[in-house]
Amino acid sequence: MQQDETHITLITPSAPVHIATHGGRAKCLQRLVRLDLPVPRTIALSFTAVHRIAAGEMPDMARLLAPFGAGRLLCVRPSSEDPDWGGPGAVLNIGINDARFVELSEQIGKRAASEIYLRFVQGYAIHVARLDPDVFDDVDEDPVRGLSQALRAYEDETDEAFPQDPGMQLAEVFRSMARAWEGTTARLLRQAKGAPADAGLGLVVQELALGLGPGESGSGVMQLVDSRTGAEQITGRYMSQSQGRDALRGGSDALYLERDPRGPSLQELAPRAFDEILAHTRLMREKLREEMQAEFTIEDGRVWILDGLRVARGGRAAVAIAVRLAEDRIIPREEALLRVEPRALNELLHQQVDPEAPRDILARGIAASPGAASGKVVFSAAEAQAAAARGEPCVLVRRETSTEDIRGMHAARAVLTERGGITSHAAVIGRGIGLPCVVGASEIRFHTRRKMLTMPDGRVVRAGETITIDGTNGHILAGEAPLLEAARDDAFQTLMAWADEFRDIGVRANADTPADAELARKFNARGIGLCRTEHMFFEADRLTVMREMIFADTSADRAAVLERLLPMQRADFTELFRIMQGQPVCIRLFDPPLHEFLPADRAGHLQLAEALDLPVSDVTRRVEALGEYNPMLGMRGVRLGITMPEIYDMQARAIFEATLEASREGVAVVPEIMIPLVSARREVELVKTRFDAVAAAVRNETGRDFAYRLGVMVETPRAALRAGEFAPLVSFLSFGTNDLTQMTYGLSRDDAGRFMSAYVQQGVYPEDPFHVLDTDGVGELLRIGAERGRAANPDVTLSICGEHGGNPESIGFCREAGFTYVSCSPFRVPVARLAAAQLAVRDKIR
Amino acid sequence: MQQDETHITLITPSAPVHIATHGGRAKCLQRLVRLDLPVPRTIALSFTAVHRIAAGEMPDMARLLAPFGAGRLLCVRPSSEDPDWGGPGAVLNIGINDARFVELSEQIGKRAASEIYLRFVQGYAIHVARLDPDVFDDVDEDPVRGLSQALRAYEDETDEAFPQDPGMQLAEVFRSMARAWEGTTARLLRQAKGAPADAGLGLVVQELALGLGPGESGSGVMQLVDSRTGAEQITGRYMSQSQGRDALRGGSDALYLERDPRGPSLQELAPRAFDEILAHTRLMREKLREEMQAEFTIEDGRVWILDGLRVARGGRAAVAIAVRLAEDRIIPREEALLRVEPRALNELLHQQVDPEAPRDILARGIAASPGAASGKVVFSAAEAQAAAARGEPCVLVRRETSTEDIRGMHAARAVLTERGGITSHAAVIGRGIGLPCVVGASEIRFHTRRKMLTMPDGRVVRAGETITIDGTNGHILAGEAPLLEAARDDAFQTLMAWADEFRDIGVRANADTPADAELARKFNARGIGLCRTEHMFFEADRLTVMREMIFADTSADRAAVLERLLPMQRADFTELFRIMQGQPVCIRLFDPPLHEFLPADRAGHLQLAEALDLPVSDVTRRVEALGEYNPMLGMRGVRLGITMPEIYDMQARAIFEATLEASREGVAVVPEIMIPLVSARREVELVKTRFDAVAAAVRNETGRDFAYRLGVMVETPRAALRAGEFAPLVSFLSFGTNDLTQMTYGLSRDDAGRFMSAYVQQGVYPEDPFHVLDTDGVGELLRIGAERGRAANPDVTLSICGEHGGNPESIGFCREAGFTYVSCSPFRVPVARLAAAQLAVRDKIR
Repeated sequence: MQQDETHITLITPSAPVHIATHGGRAKCLQRLVRLDLPVPRTIALSFTAVHRIAAGEMPDMARLLAPFGAGRLLCVRPSSEDPDWGGPGAVLNIGINDARFVELSEQIGKRAASEIYLRFVQGYAIHVARLDPDVFDDVDEDPVRGLSQALRAYEDETDEAFPQDPGMQLAEVFRSMARAWEGTTARLLRQAKGAPADAGLGLVVQELALGLGPGESGSGVMQLVDSRTGAEQITGRYMSQSQGRDALRGGSDALYLERDPRGPSLQELAPRAFDEILAHTRLMREKLREEMQAEFTIEDGRVWILDGLRVARGGRAAVAIAVRLAEDRIIPREEALLRVEPRALNELLHQQVDPEAPRDILARGIAASPGAASGKVVFSAAEAQAAAARGEPCVLVRRETSTEDIRGMHAARAVLTERGGITSHAAVIGRGIGLPCVVGASEIRFHTRRKMLTMPDGRVVRAGETITIDGTNGHILAGEAPLLEAARDDAFQTLMAWADEFRDIGVRANADTPADAELARKFNARGIGLCRTEHMFFEADRLTVMREMIFADTSADRAAVLERLLPMQRADFTELFRIMQGQPVCIRLFDPPLHEFLPADRAGHLQLAEALDLPVSDVTRRVEALGEYNPMLGMRGVRLGITMPEIYDMQARAIFEATLEASREGVAVVPEIMIPLVSARREVELVKTRFDAVAAAVRNETGRDFAYRLGVMVETPRAALRAGEFAPLVSFLSFGTNDLTQMTYGLSRDDAGRFMSAYVQQGVYPEDPFHVLDTDGVGELLRIGAERGRAANPDVTLSICGEHGGNPESIGFCREAGFTYVSCSPFRVPVARLAAAQLAVRDKIR
Repeated sequence: MQQDETHITLITPSAPVHIATHGGRAKCLQRLVRLDLPVPRTIALSFTAVHRIAAGEMPDMARLLAPFGAGRLLCVRPSSEDPDWGGPGAVLNIGINDARFVELSEQIGKRAASEIYLRFVQGYAIHVARLDPDVFDDVDEDPVRGLSQALRAYEDETDEAFPQDPGMQLAEVFRSMARAWEGTTARLLRQAKGAPADAGLGLVVQELALGLGPGESGSGVMQLVDSRTGAEQITGRYMSQSQGRDALRGGSDALYLERDPRGPSLQELAPRAFDEILAHTRLMREKLREEMQAEFTIEDGRVWILDGLRVARGGRAAVAIAVRLAEDRIIPREEALLRVEPRALNELLHQQVDPEAPRDILARGIAASPGAASGKVVFSAAEAQAAAARGEPCVLVRRETSTEDIRGMHAARAVLTERGGITSHAAVIGRGIGLPCVVGASEIRFHTRRKMLTMPDGRVVRAGETITIDGTNGHILAGEAPLLEAARDDAFQTLMAWADEFRDIGVRANADTPADAELARKFNARGIGLCRTEHMFFEADRLTVMREMIFADTSADRAAVLERLLPMQRADFTELFRIMQGQPVCIRLFDPPLHEFLPADRAGHLQLAEALDLPVSDVTRRVEALGEYNPMLGMRGVRLGITMPEIYDMQARAIFEATLEASREGVAVVPEIMIPLVSARREVELVKTRFDAVAAAVRNETGRDFAYRLGVMVETPRAALRAGEFAPLVSFLSFGTNDLTQMTYGLSRDDAGRFMSAYVQQGVYPEDPFHVLDTDGVGELLRIGAERGRAANPDVTLSICGEHGGNPESIGFCREAGFTYVSCSPFRVPVARLAAAQLAVRDKIR
């Protein structure tokens, strides 16, 4: 019987095993057999076979058991090794009965035989007969006494004697496993993990190597790396007189594998077996081209390799392993790049809560910015700054954040908000500056005035108490959780360098400040794709000037006030150009509505009235007059630039003068200037005319020449549709997919949080479109804009900036649409670089 | 000289005159000559000729004057009769000098000759030599003495004698007229009125018929209709011993034309001349196919027809004239339809400020809803309702209006707001219910708390004082201005009936209430294209229930509260179906965000807390939690329908039960149900599934069958792009161009007012896209949506609803895109019907 119509395969060096029908474990075992590893006799059953047997259709169990030595004990396990597939977790043994027990007692002693039979009875009773585990509560610790008690308990509960026919035992095991596979939980899990809907359960049946019995008998696992770090290190445990993976659970009896100062080891106990297992594990690594964990049993001194599993790993270990496999020339670099999930890099870029430490979860919210940090709870940006000044780590807690909180966010170690979604202000800024952030934690009650939080279980956290924010998982943890440091180590740098060799789409960073720009350089971004200039105006000294500007009545007054901002803006840009050392810097002109710069409450109005020497009623009136129903769709961006052209004039001059300043220092700069919120060609014309005039004036005054590139931020649907109209006027089009998504869906990202999760759960939207680019709708506008823009101006540079720029799926879209680069927040740059490299490698392989 | 290289044409029955080079007046005069009317000898000069002469290039003036009798006096006027073209307004006479004066004195007496010479000197001095009119302040009333004083004054000012050579006089007149034509004011005016940029000034030179002198001499104008109403009525004045249009200015000396009890008439004074002029005017009407005003002079008993002008008219007269011309079989009905500008119908549909009465304009704003009304100023909706209850007409003054003001708007005669644009809430509601409305009156200072308005000139209007709102022109007038009643007379009905014969696209009305529906019927709308159901929830009794629903914590509680709204909604729909008598009614499901139903201030919260028996802090918390940054892009429309399905379930049941109710009364109803704010196919599926379930339940409970049509309101760009996905699920797609415009431009109509006028003035947008459909951007999405929708479901009905539906240009667009109907507010239905008819007629002609 090599393979019959029911897909039962004896695993031998020559029998074909197909992963589609048998699963990864069967495939792996076959490869181990082919490598001449000492694998016990094994058969693999396809899911067709399993389900037919479970349904009672193929009752000839004797024939099925024929390949095995008569009376051998067997173990059964699912042939998929992926726990996400939701199969039955248990490994079940069969083949023992009263007769066999007698033989076995002679062979390995009554005590060991009793223990084996006892375990089998208990496992069978719980997983197959579905008895309550507590029926065995009174079973004696001594296996010999325990066995007869257990057999009695079984009989009492089921009114049947424990089944003695191995064939029937096997059929029942199949039935129970198939039932678990079909259970709702398992099905939902498979669905959620993207497993094929009709995936079935395959099984592997293997002769049981006995870790109990005479001579050196026992079991253990071995791998060649540390799972957490990926560092080279023989890792694992061995336990004499044990079965399966007991050694991993075992306490003081578990031995180290290699000689170890901390305690006894297998290497000392059984050096030849140790050497043999080590050689097998090394061979597996080399031939299976992967770090493997060997599951082994020593049966009276003889080594058996029962199974090989891919070493489970976090992001950090994944990088180290992939790089070393390539450096050892076991896999090519291209494959090393494919071995690391881009998002897994987040683990290397940020501090993490130690995954092995216990977690005291207070509440959950939306994981908005990865990484973890602990600190004392503060409820305002000002307190956050004060805490930072005292050198105390703090966590800023707000109902939601706004531009006024930015400096507080910079001062805090982490941010927690009640409202908002994955693209709320807090989330965007958090990801931008690498600040762990949990948003939309609506299950917590925020009493911001009383400065306390009530958790869902009633626990209260007050200002000054320490919590930990895990922005990777969206957890709020009590106290100071143990953290792992970020790990941008050599392996990471090597992998990134390889990624840059292969990728064929540019990756820039969004960076608003010198600190961001330094980060962008550190992460090897090829320039700045989006520098939001408005953030520069929230510094205390500038904010006052901005407010004066807003309150100026005439164009001349506005220009006079802006004159005072000019040197600050010029210094901002000079600094950026200096840091970026000639890499391109794309500056977006002033974008937000003016009311964002005004205080919202009466106290703020009073203060402002004093500062401006105006009656408070005037201030209140002006603030109210500037209020908007839908600020997102209001007087901002180029609309402000055209109705109050003095602002853009000032910015133009600042950029040009900074360009000359930087070039005086030897940095060659051709600034890129981007016009936000364009909806009509004439807007571009008007800005271009004024910019050319300012450039001419600066050239005139200084007697020096410089170039600049003007571009449009395509973020209204109309700009995408009419890109052909204005593309000839500009050097580049950069698609702002955040706003474009908002407008295409008619969906404010600040307000979407309230129903987005319900929408995604119900499948109304397959994904949050602010998180994953909607290639159907928004993507069509991108394609239309790109095509029309390029048709009208073949030299136009195309790119995207905004949150989607760092998203692997979106990068694939942009690459296919022929974009020159993507731009994303600095902390997503490595993710984007790796994702881009993977796309190029996959294309090459295809 | 019939026509030479410089385009000087002697107007005779055979000489060709081209309107492009000579203007309408020359063309008209030639037609009068061909009709054998007694037109004095005339030449027409093309603009090339005029401008060359003005530039001194063609100095042979004698040759130019040759066609005229030696020594005849001549008059010169622009050959375009359109005052909008900004030409020189004056009619100037030439040909008199000292020698001719002597001859003329012998011929018509010294006094008349002196008067002619004096007028010529004064006109020439002011318009040609550009002297200040006050140099003639001391000239004697007696023309004989006055003439020599005027000649002296001329010489004193210019240091030159009055020019004696008629050729030179003519050349100077040309020069001055050409200068006026080229002036900035005239050019801006032409540009604004859409005249071709390179339009030139043509002139007409005509022998002067003398209305001064012996025998019966004089001048006047005659037309056959009343200019204001278009009613048949010989209208005009005649004055003996007068020139040109003096009779129209003249006081007691001016005669009626026809015998008249009010005073002496030309018919009595010179019956033969009267008959002759009447015959000429009637001939002009018949042959020129238009109501004409004849300008005539009687020279010693002999009648001359100097000119024929199209009778100036308002909208009301235009309708009456066009209809009577067609009824008299002078023009076909098609042409009658083309003779009336659709927007001019507004004048017939609403009260108007009497255009002939003086206007005391307090301030100007945006003309948001046509018509005029007077009333006492009130500053809140509650006061408006109180005033209405007392029977006092009032004008509701608000910074801006919101849904809470709707009942106040219904109670007021007119509305005035400080903020907002042409598509603000006040404007949309105003147009919907035919309420005169001026919005965005930002030049007025609104002190709403002190209940007063400060006008730009410093005048103050307090609550209780009367003003007049002219929503047609955007004027705010002091006191109670004289008004003309609306005039939906027979001629109007006739024209509308003809329009319906010719048009080939449907016109429905947007109607939310029974009153709206009655209006829709009155204006012959073919059904309701948009019934916004949320307006039904603002009635006091329902509002309370709505608020309870919002505060309900569970789905079951919500359903229970909604149960109480069900009978009211059912009654609403039954009433609508009854009024519409089987015409289609398209009901849009609940659309606005819930916070619109909650009070905004603390007092309101308190009241609500009492009503709901909740702590006020809970109410405030809930209200705050429901607040949104961008409500336009928030939790509303189908998003609400999916996350709180109980609301739509209730509406579905109400519609279905009303359908059965109406059909029990013999009205056959197939309700159309429209889902708002769709952005994904799944939204449609979910609503459809629930609606089908509710329909099945109602059929089950009642044992009666009914049909309904489900549709999507396409108002997000994504819905337009993905129309092909959901079109197969529905019966119709109705494009909501208001929201679609907002999202395509990224422009909130409530906030756009602040810069829209600046944007349109600077030509950034050619028009306000909320006013005139943006065919390039929004229009492309309409085309894409229509094409994809139809491709996926050839039976799908296509339409637009929203403000653009009543706009003639937009109707043209929809017709070309193959839409079935447009829907607009009831008062725009006649405009839409006429516009649609014109499109069909023009297509037929083409």
